[in-house]
Amino acid sequence: MSDKDKLAAAVFHKMMEKDFCSQWMGIEPILLEEGHCKIKMTVKREMLNGYSIMHGGIAFAFADSAFAFASNSYGRIAVSINGSMSYARSAKEGEVLIAEAKALNVNYKTADFDVNVMNEAGEIYYFFRGTVYRSSKEVLEQSLDQ
Amino acid sequence: MSDKDKLAAAVFHKMMEKDFCSQWMGIEPILLEEGHCKIKMTVKREMLNGYSIMHGGIAFAFADSAFAFASNSYGRIAVSINGSMSYARSAKEGEVLIAEAKALNVNYKTADFDVNVMNEAGEIYYFFRGTVYRSSKEVLEQSLDQ
Amino acid sequence: MSDKDKLAAAVFHKMMEKDFCSQWMGIEPILLEEGHCKIKMTVKREMLNGYSIMHGGIAFAFADSAFAFASNSYGRIAVSINGSMSYARSAKEGEVLIAEAKALNVNYKTADFDVNVMNEAGEIYYFFRGTVYRSSKEVLEQSLDQ
Amino acid sequence: MSDKDKLAAAVFHKMMEKDFCSQWMGIEPILLEEGHCKIKMTVKREMLNGYSIMHGGIAFAFADSAFAFASNSYGRIAVSINGSMSYARSAKEGEVLIAEAKALNVNYKTADFDVNVMNEAGEIYYFFRGTVYRSSKEVLEQSLDQ
Repeated sequence: MSDKDKLAAAVFHKMMEKDFCSQWMGIEPILLEEGHCKIKMTVKREMLNGYSIMHGGIAFAFADSAFAFASNSYGRIAVSINGSMSYARSAKEGEVLIAEAKALNVNYKTADFDVNVMNEAGEIYYFFRGTVYRSSKEVLEQSLDQ
Repeated sequence: MSDKDKLAAAVFHKMMEKDFCSQWMGIEPILLEEGHCKIKMTVKREMLNGYSIMHGGIAFAFADSAFAFASNSYGRIAVSINGSMSYARSAKEGEVLIAEAKALNVNYKTADFDVNVMNEAGEIYYFFRGTVYRSSKEVLEQSLDQ
Repeated sequence: MSDKDKLAAAVFHKMMEKDFCSQWMGIEPILLEEGHCKIKMTVKREMLNGYSIMHGGIAFAFADSAFAFASNSYGRIAVSINGSMSYARSAKEGEVLIAEAKALNVNYKTADFDVNVMNEAGEIYYFFRGTVYRSSKEVLEQSLDQ
Repeated sequence: MSDKDKLAAAVFHKMMEKDFCSQWMGIEPILLEEGHCKIKMTVKREMLNGYSIMHGGIAFAFADSAFAFASNSYGRIAVSINGSMSYARSAKEGEVLIAEAKALNVNYKTADFDVNVMNEAGEIYYFFRGTVYRSSKEVLEQSLDQ
């Protein structure tokens, strides 16, 4: 395990400590690398909308968590500026979903990431793209809850 | 109350019946009209991210619910194609938030909506914009959970 | 005319000097204020796509110019990070279009703007939303072409 | 050459006939397949903004043309609903750019595409994502300029 990947994992664990929303979603890590992560969760009843499919906002929240872990993985605090999602398929209760975040472009002050949300067979259900502002503060040196 | 507004309210109540996610968020209606709605919720602990502010995905989910109610309010089933959100401020635990959805543009087959998420003083925290595909099926004539 | 509006106008004129693309589009200012501008142009033959309506990219370029003038109007150089456009109606050759840019949210390092592109009667054809990174360099103190 | 690729090429040539904007940009085809195309152009003086780099709107227009060719390549008329672009690098006058459009997701009534705009070395400068509404009319059976 490289030092960069160790940092990515340390950042993930520190962020998850008080990330009650990701905890509520039941997010578990699969892969944590610099600028790249894979996480998974299972669609539960409280995630469904009135059409008995996963609420689009939960799809977005799941992708957004992957985006946060990947964009903070370099060590510097990254704050989301905007994000967008395209819906290709609907997820049902009980399905296991995987979100994979990859850096598209990392500048000194901003960065863009793609997150694909897929089933275990790799079929993509939701396409997320987002942008962060990269602060100069370090994740591991800060108390995050202020 | 006009027939159009009665339809918008009937659609909201039918959609909410099994919308376990909007129920989990604690969403309550403030205003339900054709192409326009206002809903509210209170930020709770399970909605926070690792920085102790509301998870961006929950902000999106809240806006997305308002978007769904407004875009289905005409009576025809509307399916989200995509949505995007810009983050202006952060919401804290215990804050009451209001999401107001307004139609930007309604064509026969697609429509665009803006949703502003604000505090009770009207200060906007999150700007959402989304597009739906409008099917020819009627919300009130369908079983929604298939 | 306030000092802020004088600065907005000075920034516009400095930016337009070598903005060969905005010159090619035939852009003229209508209103130049801090964080707010209105510009106009006439749809010409070289702006049409294969369906004999204005090319969506030119609609975007026109909105993007308004976005640039408004986001630089505070005096600091603002660089576009991303932008999106929703298409409501189609413009035809010879139509006069107006783009109005307004600040949604201005932070120290980033800012969001909406630009509505409309006809002279105020009917909106295109809805643009974009985000800039705000550098610490001043527009009026820089040579812009490096 | 498969029948599908022949159709994609026929659609491109019919659309380009009166696409005065793509002609003005100097767009040339490199690859035309079903749901996939590559086109190129050279950045010219009228494409520059006030900072002497390619105007973001022209980057968008170039990507949007690739998007149009790829989304219409199936034979049915596809109409852009929305599009977004993230800016990673700046293009300069004289640079040769390539736009590659690929289908993300094709449903019966809507479809999503990614378009990457890159230099000849394959370095991506601009990331575009867009959605079309797919009508039931055939490109090759219609007069496109009504």
